[in-house]
Amino acid sequence: MFDAVGITVPTLLINETVCRSNIETMQEKADRFSVQLIPHFKTHQSAEVGSWFRDAGTKAITVSSLSMAAFFAGQGWDDITVAFPANIRESDTINTLAANIRLRIFILSAETATHLARVLTHPVDYYIEIDTGYGRTGVSCDDHSLIRSVMRAAAVSHNLNFAGFYTHDGNTYEVTGRDAIMKIHRGTREKLEALREKYAPDYPGLKVSLGDTPGCSVTDNLSGLDEIRPGNYVFYDVTQTAIGSCTYDQIGTALAAPVVARHEDRLELVVYGGGVHLSKDSLAINGKTIYGLPVDLLKNGWSAPAEGCYIRKLSQEHGILKVTRAVFDRYAVGDVIGILPVHSCMTMDLMRFNGKIMIIS
Amino acid sequence: MFDAVGITVPTLLINETVCRSNIETMQEKADRFSVQLIPHFKTHQSAEVGSWFRDAGTKAITVSSLSMAAFFAGQGWDDITVAFPANIRESDTINTLAANIRLRIFILSAETATHLARVLTHPVDYYIEIDTGYGRTGVSCDDHSLIRSVMRAAAVSHNLNFAGFYTHDGNTYEVTGRDAIMKIHRGTREKLEALREKYAPDYPGLKVSLGDTPGCSVTDNLSGLDEIRPGNYVFYDVTQTAIGSCTYDQIGTALAAPVVARHEDRLELVVYGGGVHLSKDSLAINGKTIYGLPVDLLKNGWSAPAEGCYIRKLSQEHGILKVTRAVFDRYAVGDVIGILPVHSCMTMDLMRFNGKIMIIS
Repeated sequence: MFDAVGITVPTLLINETVCRSNIETMQEKADRFSVQLIPHFKTHQSAEVGSWFRDAGTKAITVSSLSMAAFFAGQGWDDITVAFPANIRESDTINTLAANIRLRIFILSAETATHLARVLTHPVDYYIEIDTGYGRTGVSCDDHSLIRSVMRAAAVSHNLNFAGFYTHDGNTYEVTGRDAIMKIHRGTREKLEALREKYAPDYPGLKVSLGDTPGCSVTDNLSGLDEIRPGNYVFYDVTQTAIGSCTYDQIGTALAAPVVARHEDRLELVVYGGGVHLSKDSLAINGKTIYGLPVDLLKNGWSAPAEGCYIRKLSQEHGILKVTRAVFDRYAVGDVIGILPVHSCMTMDLMRFNGKIMIIS
Repeated sequence: MFDAVGITVPTLLINETVCRSNIETMQEKADRFSVQLIPHFKTHQSAEVGSWFRDAGTKAITVSSLSMAAFFAGQGWDDITVAFPANIRESDTINTLAANIRLRIFILSAETATHLARVLTHPVDYYIEIDTGYGRTGVSCDDHSLIRSVMRAAAVSHNLNFAGFYTHDGNTYEVTGRDAIMKIHRGTREKLEALREKYAPDYPGLKVSLGDTPGCSVTDNLSGLDEIRPGNYVFYDVTQTAIGSCTYDQIGTALAAPVVARHEDRLELVVYGGGVHLSKDSLAINGKTIYGLPVDLLKNGWSAPAEGCYIRKLSQEHGILKVTRAVFDRYAVGDVIGILPVHSCMTMDLMRFNGKIMIIS
């Protein structure tokens, strides 16, 4: 039985054993194909979780903002990629970081390249972010005129070194099952490899780099890639199980939430644990919109999700759990129940400030 | 033209003039009917915005957690209601706060009342939260057996003083337009007044208390209520305009987001401003799911939302804005665009930590 003594408010449990296993599994796969794993640290934003990656051999990391880069630079990380379109309003921050670490950034337009070429005071490596069909951001993989114009604008400065092509293969988040993920993953890799072939004569050292947890989790062959940058896999979450990237026992984090009310007429538990803890990210499962899945907390972890139970609604601090009769009867006001998050990156981001974090193993 | 100098990262602009006007409008309405306005501070969680309420005459406040209560107690607020089912795991915090301020809490079950009766060391006022049909939490307004059992369990302790009945009339968030809001609002008040009539012989001083921005904004008659506890009205947001609680020029906050990429083929702007800034709260408008509405930032505020433009998608740090040709042509990479949030409470909660806050007037 989980020892809930000391849990008074929403508390994010991080299972060190599970997380370290997730970290090692991905590292072994990357090593097997001599691909550099540059894990995305936006998922955890934590110095301590970061140290588990260091233990597994991680040398370079990915983040999604310059402020995250500055945080991890302060933790001794000295090779950091900011996987977000370079924001020219933060040129001073780029310069400060680039003075101290190997900084890698993304450039998507000639305007940005021109601006940075003018203001950079220290060398940075830049990737051109490529859109292979996701449609969020990035240069279309067919738009060679734009790719060349970015390269030309950057070439003006000796502080801008072309590192390669990156893509976030977000389409893998929109399918279910290994075959569907692999179909997208293979198509994306072909597009990246075609880019490498086309531009390698001019840039022999260029890397192709891919970042998404579903594809990197599911594939058993990374050959052809130079770098992978998944991040979510350290924790995984309900979304990843729904996609088919992981099993429930690979989920490394759960919110421990005190039960504050019970509504027997509708078999609902109300917990202290709401949108400012889990985030409002939701998922449609069997026609229902869910905001997390309840689990029983155990001594060193938690159970599988309770069949037929889900988080129906979140207010700012309230979580409304639809449960079965059996689960309802098992929980009294004052007990603590676990909730597997729909999107662990967003939950962790909130829980850094709006609750407590407890590492278990 | 808005002076964006100094804006480098997502920055929440708070328009003091608009917010103070919203605060005063609601205060005047409450005063007109001799109703005590006990504003909900979960919306802003800010010492400075709180001081604007103090200037308008606010003496007592509402919050949604004991940690928020502790924060505002530290700012000199000495009459604080925690509008959330009392969490018996935080009894020590309740005692610490109750030793120093007038603390009002919500009790929804005899179990909680019994527990608190045993452990409380200082007097608190308690409300029984009533469910008048929203179905989130609270004792059904017809369940007199449960109401009486809470009262009996609490009566054992001289530290538990029955203050009255509270309801969050969340159903007003699920309709559109003044008439629909008023229909729900009137029904709720009738139920609260019936409760007062029934229990006043035993508790002559009991208050009936209502907390929701749509009903309190739309009604022009508060007679019959003792207290109102809306909170969102200080900022309002796109949701409130969609419901019909406010007009766009009453919205007191907008996210200033740097443009980092432009995709002409699909007329989309990519901004630095994502789910960790705005929150993933969304709204369905004309069959589209939107995450905010873009506005032009002006010298002392911002424009109305640009016709036909909306935030289509949010990643952790990316906001994807669907815009018209005219708006697309007006914004270059490096410019700053405004975004009206779907849900200002959630945006403010995030922006306290994940960006900057700038007060303008």
